Amino acid sequence: MSSLNLVHLLLFLFLFPVLISSFPQFLGRFSHRKFRNSNYSSNSNSNSYSYETRYYTQQLDHFSFIGDTQGDDSTFQQRYLLGSTDNWAPPRGPIFFYCGNEGDIVWFAENTGFIWEIAPRFNALVVFAEHRYYGESMPYGSKEAAYSGAKSLAYLTAEQALADYATLLIDLKRNMSSEDSPVVLFGGSYAGMLAAWMRLKYPHIAIGALASSAPILQFDDIVPADTFYNIVSNDFKRESESCFNSIKKSWDVLQAEGNDENGLLKLTKTFRICHTLNNTGDLLDWIDSAYSYLGMVDYPYPSDFLMPLPANPIKEVCRHIDDDSDGKTLAERIYAGVNVYYNYTGNYTCFDLDDDPHGMNGWQWQACTEMIMPFASNPKTSMFPPYDFSLADRENECRMTYNVSIRPRWITTEFGGHNISTVLKKFGSNIIFSNGLLDPWSGGGVLKNISDSIIALVAPLGSI
Amino acid sequence: MSSLNLVHLLLFLFLFPVLISSFPQFLGRFSHRKFRNSNYSSNSNSNSYSYETRYYTQQLDHFSFIGDTQGDDSTFQQRYLLGSTDNWAPPRGPIFFYCGNEGDIVWFAENTGFIWEIAPRFNALVVFAEHRYYGESMPYGSKEAAYSGAKSLAYLTAEQALADYATLLIDLKRNMSSEDSPVVLFGGSYAGMLAAWMRLKYPHIAIGALASSAPILQFDDIVPADTFYNIVSNDFKRESESCFNSIKKSWDVLQAEGNDENGLLKLTKTFRICHTLNNTGDLLDWIDSAYSYLGMVDYPYPSDFLMPLPANPIKEVCRHIDDDSDGKTLAERIYAGVNVYYNYTGNYTCFDLDDDPHGMNGWQWQACTEMIMPFASNPKTSMFPPYDFSLADRENECRMTYNVSIRPRWITTEFGGHNISTVLKKFGSNIIFSNGLLDPWSGGGVLKNISDSIIALVAPLGSI
Repeated sequence: MSSLNLVHLLLFLFLFPVLISSFPQFLGRFSHRKFRNSNYSSNSNSNSYSYETRYYTQQLDHFSFIGDTQGDDSTFQQRYLLGSTDNWAPPRGPIFFYCGNEGDIVWFAENTGFIWEIAPRFNALVVFAEHRYYGESMPYGSKEAAYSGAKSLAYLTAEQALADYATLLIDLKRNMSSEDSPVVLFGGSYAGMLAAWMRLKYPHIAIGALASSAPILQFDDIVPADTFYNIVSNDFKRESESCFNSIKKSWDVLQAEGNDENGLLKLTKTFRICHTLNNTGDLLDWIDSAYSYLGMVDYPYPSDFLMPLPANPIKEVCRHIDDDSDGKTLAERIYAGVNVYYNYTGNYTCFDLDDDPHGMNGWQWQACTEMIMPFASNPKTSMFPPYDFSLADRENECRMTYNVSIRPRWITTEFGGHNISTVLKKFGSNIIFSNGLLDPWSGGGVLKNISDSIIALVAPLGSI
Repeated sequence: MSSLNLVHLLLFLFLFPVLISSFPQFLGRFSHRKFRNSNYSSNSNSNSYSYETRYYTQQLDHFSFIGDTQGDDSTFQQRYLLGSTDNWAPPRGPIFFYCGNEGDIVWFAENTGFIWEIAPRFNALVVFAEHRYYGESMPYGSKEAAYSGAKSLAYLTAEQALADYATLLIDLKRNMSSEDSPVVLFGGSYAGMLAAWMRLKYPHIAIGALASSAPILQFDDIVPADTFYNIVSNDFKRESESCFNSIKKSWDVLQAEGNDENGLLKLTKTFRICHTLNNTGDLLDWIDSAYSYLGMVDYPYPSDFLMPLPANPIKEVCRHIDDDSDGKTLAERIYAGVNVYYNYTGNYTCFDLDDDPHGMNGWQWQACTEMIMPFASNPKTSMFPPYDFSLADRENECRMTYNVSIRPRWITTEFGGHNISTVLKKFGSNIIFSNGLLDPWSGGGVLKNISDSIIALVAPLGSI
């Protein structure tokens, strides 16, 4: 199959609304915000895609040999999921390879129906590879050991992950006598970035990539820092101007309430927080997260990815925030709004603000090292509390947390990003960038066609 | 200037015979062979290119953060040479960037006249960057510390060197307000590989590369392992069939002499070796090296790069080997031949076979880690002793020497190499590969045009 045909076919197929993946991301301020897997309860039937779980002995460090001095720790077991080979024919049957995100690969495999749906049409073999330091793919034998500090976390980087995928693919193809199989990469959000970068860096290994909601321009000074929060804010304003205004006003109100005598206790009760708040900031971060995630999953149909949610969840959130019929306070209305996000199924009687007390989730490390995405909240356009991005603050926070230095220019040095259309036009090919404009990550995405084979698919009313 | 114009101009200019660089390489067997800088004495006037010596604080480890746990050792001072900026005009004046080889950058700068000669025609700024772990660019504060073992040598890899160049270039351009300056990469031999790989991996940083004598296909099973020695052998056969035959016969003869009573002492005298030989193998390696290097520098004019040499040095070597007029023994004739290479100026009264007693030169490390180039000597076609390449042997030798494991498939995983014409045609551009067919490294080079802008320049009677 020629790569051009494949691109056109994928392009066509992708017009169906399908969910690719998500992004438990570092949202700008340095908080312990993470994707709350443990709060997650599905309200739909579990998918039942058929695959075999395998493990591959992977180099801890591809780009230097310090790992070799670490004995058994110089390698680790990388998990990957291998789809059915029944209709796949080596040596040339195509391989659809999902570049694992910052999370358990099983969860991404179960929630990425698109690949499973299209693979049979191409008689393609589906492979989901887990990202190092997530799920079961832990160096140093356990999550505790891997996350014990900067020394063991050191190898949690995007370049190492890409090299994992490259190494795994070459070995897999060799073992299956399918060295001539074309490989197409898939990924959404962080994994979308990885898919695009991998196509650029390893074109000899993959002939194309579908990079969904991939904010590869959310680095350095490529896009304005306030883009992300402006998009979320507009998502709300679009549904209800008064909702936008209430939220914008709420931060000061909640902060003032928290400063009152017994204020924290009162807020704890209003927001049904399981453990009494130590400070108002933790609550505000939790609320902020809900709004930001809602921008990513504002689908016009009920969905069940980040959280079980109704159709048009922002509209639903705003319906509650705008509803002052019973003389509700602003705090109560805000609670009613975020409750749509955190507890649509009504299963929770209280909320645990931070289920990762050690602050050791992997994305936080990545956001303290390579993934320096500048975020700001511009009081003129954003409904979020005003916030300026400061490299110095991030550096201090990361130094305190991990004793590590941020490298704010590294991602653009390694992968580019500036003058992307000129550069990609000249040397890139076979990448589809897809974005929904309601998704705040679209602000850092590639939204225009760059060439005949580097294509931007934009869904104006789409989310992640 | 458009990149296409540049390629055409460089193409034109490159037709002048100019010396790009050389390659103190690991020739196949695991010996302590290296480029004998200390034996080097120039017989020509020193060049006087004008440049300023500068240092850049470079990350020790670009792809992980383990360096961050090493305090002051997490960075090192990378040396680079900055040519005159008199006729160079930011923000768009071009930059000609030489990717340093495995050696002192001053020496490469002094011996790469081509760049200095063409730069003025483009009003280009010339930069020579030193490769980490060579010359003065030593991590850990000193050569002793950097070369103390596998733990400190760990970061001596090609990918780290490329990231050094990328980081340096971006910082340099920012500091000189020349962010729009097009960068053209240059390099010969190992540095030619680096230049080509850098254009492929960092196309957002450099618009083109001139990769001279770059054996990027000398890995894995891409070219037959006996290619290198076959080319050297043919270089000799072409000058004299009897010379070829004498050399082919000489290995057994010398080995037998060495096995005789007092044989080693006799060989030591015949070959003017300063310290009495411990075994015949060291002598054979030394002779083998001379022939191999001669293939790289068999210029039709006197030259002074690897060694001060006459025009057509192989012809001259063979003249001595073929000359049995005074009843000379085969050993004496072989000595007279290699003496042309090692001592054309007649300055040496005896030879030191190994001036690096610790076996700690950097290329040896690289040849024990990533740079696994298979070499074999095929008795049917080669004048060298028969020799089969064995990964197991290399692994054992490297494990013994450095306690490190070779990664024989890594270079092709990271940089490609298989199906090079198909792959490069699709995604690469603006690379000139130049090779002389007398140069044994041409066997692993790109010898055919791949596309309009990936061009092979082949000089049938050219050396490195």
